[in-house]
Amino acid sequence: MTETILFDRIAFIGIGLIGSSLARVIRRDGLAGHIVACARSEATLKTVMDLGLADSVTNDPAEAVDGADLVVLGTPIGAYEAIAKAIGPVLKKGAIVTDVGSVKRMAIDAVKPHLPPDVSLVPGHPVAGTENSGPESGFDTLFVNRWVILTPTPDTSADAVEKVAELWRRAGSNIEIMDAGHHDQVLAITSHVPHLIAYTIVGTVTDLEDVLKSEVIKFAASGFRDFTRIAASDPIMWRDIFLSNRDAVLEMLGRLTEDISALQRAIRDGDGAYMEDKFTRTRAIRRGVVDAGQHIPPKPPGTPKP
Amino acid sequence: MTETILFDRIAFIGIGLIGSSLARVIRRDGLAGHIVACARSEATLKTVMDLGLADSVTNDPAEAVDGADLVVLGTPIGAYEAIAKAIGPVLKKGAIVTDVGSVKRMAIDAVKPHLPPDVSLVPGHPVAGTENSGPESGFDTLFVNRWVILTPTPDTSADAVEKVAELWRRAGSNIEIMDAGHHDQVLAITSHVPHLIAYTIVGTVTDLEDVLKSEVIKFAASGFRDFTRIAASDPIMWRDIFLSNRDAVLEMLGRLTEDISALQRAIRDGDGAYMEDKFTRTRAIRRGVVDAGQHIPPKPPGTPKP
Repeated sequence: MTETILFDRIAFIGIGLIGSSLARVIRRDGLAGHIVACARSEATLKTVMDLGLADSVTNDPAEAVDGADLVVLGTPIGAYEAIAKAIGPVLKKGAIVTDVGSVKRMAIDAVKPHLPPDVSLVPGHPVAGTENSGPESGFDTLFVNRWVILTPTPDTSADAVEKVAELWRRAGSNIEIMDAGHHDQVLAITSHVPHLIAYTIVGTVTDLEDVLKSEVIKFAASGFRDFTRIAASDPIMWRDIFLSNRDAVLEMLGRLTEDISALQRAIRDGDGAYMEDKFTRTRAIRRGVVDAGQHIPPKPPGTPKP
Repeated sequence: MTETILFDRIAFIGIGLIGSSLARVIRRDGLAGHIVACARSEATLKTVMDLGLADSVTNDPAEAVDGADLVVLGTPIGAYEAIAKAIGPVLKKGAIVTDVGSVKRMAIDAVKPHLPPDVSLVPGHPVAGTENSGPESGFDTLFVNRWVILTPTPDTSADAVEKVAELWRRAGSNIEIMDAGHHDQVLAITSHVPHLIAYTIVGTVTDLEDVLKSEVIKFAASGFRDFTRIAASDPIMWRDIFLSNRDAVLEMLGRLTEDISALQRAIRDGDGAYMEDKFTRTRAIRRGVVDAGQHIPPKPPGTPKP
């Protein structure tokens, strides 16, 4: 049993969909001697204990990290700096701090200045998720065959990176090491802007007159249905993602609105050839995604088969 | 057996995902005495015969409709007018012409002027589909628990509407009768603009430099993954949808781009409160879609469970 332990004590600061899914993996495989979970809300802490996801709970980050060998930040990114300030002075010598946030440059900027030099920061991003939030929505197969991108800074020890990578490998993930800024640019395209557009299009519907709105919901077809699923994601988490990855999101959004304008003009002008060309080329991208094995969304076990 | 027959002879003009799925239902339940399928390509006709979806095939629409009691138009909408001109003079007296296109006002305008007065036009739209095309991708459960919207004109006989409705009920669909223009407005929102945005965002990626593009495909996360699926839909069919529903699509697109601009400004200004409010309100729409039972996409039988 002791051989499987990767960290004697792991502290989760924030334990929602991602954190609780990782905690489930750690529990399942006995990868930690002790798990402590920290959340602001008593209801969340009760859920965590009821689900048996942690050995102890607290609403105090400093108390949570006391003696921890690994600290996993799983809150919205906007909370990182205050947490880093609170835990910095009490972190165990040699501890590793990692996170699961979707923006990495800002995560480093918010956390690193507050960590003592003998603590390693290994910023991480498991590229996996569902539209559900909270510790009750996690499941231990969420990360299987998904990428986890680690974005160590130049002074992060290779040993610390490897320890965090090994934890994710046990969860079934593939590891990619990347520069934080580059990560933010790639994810702006694959995740942040698509979420922003989904939020927008569903938001536009909320402003429709009531009769039309009820019909739109009734006849939600492929397209809008998928957008509503994406737009059901956690509002605070996504607010912080857009605020934290502002430059990359705005740059990509700029390109996108130019392309929307071009298509708008083609529709107005009845330019079918332009559309046919554009729509044919997008099929190749889908083939690439399917070939990369990333086309099937993760589903909690027991999800009813359609 | 003869009691189950709804139409002695049914002609499919164009037999792709939707048409072939309906043909499978008709075959399964013995709802027609004879099915004739018409397609331009010999390869498609061969597939149709190999799959046993029709009793006879032809590439000549006029030949296909000869003696048919029901004609189902299943081509891209841009082909409707030429087909209507070709079949109008040879349609059987008392025949019913229906279609499965996603735009209804333009479908009526293209077809109705060319039909003799003793033929009934029952425009229809099964709000169901997948991103796959062609007769090989159809399946007989595609329409189960899905809406079929019928948009008869004031002079369409109630008897003809009921006959087409009954066929769709046998496929498991629920029927809604609606004004054609209103249908086009609702579908612009639920389907046409979402597809247009998905095509655009995936198209924007096709224009990225190669290294970034390959990483975007590799790390396709929730969001982009869903967009690539939508953007893999048939290019010709969608070109014709945007051309045929121009006004409603442009109107909705206008609202959407205004909302994108507002969100863009909020990100630039760091206005978290604006975003939080917007993203929280979109969750209610998702709940509405789930309550309406339209949140689970149709899947061909045998689709591997994720």
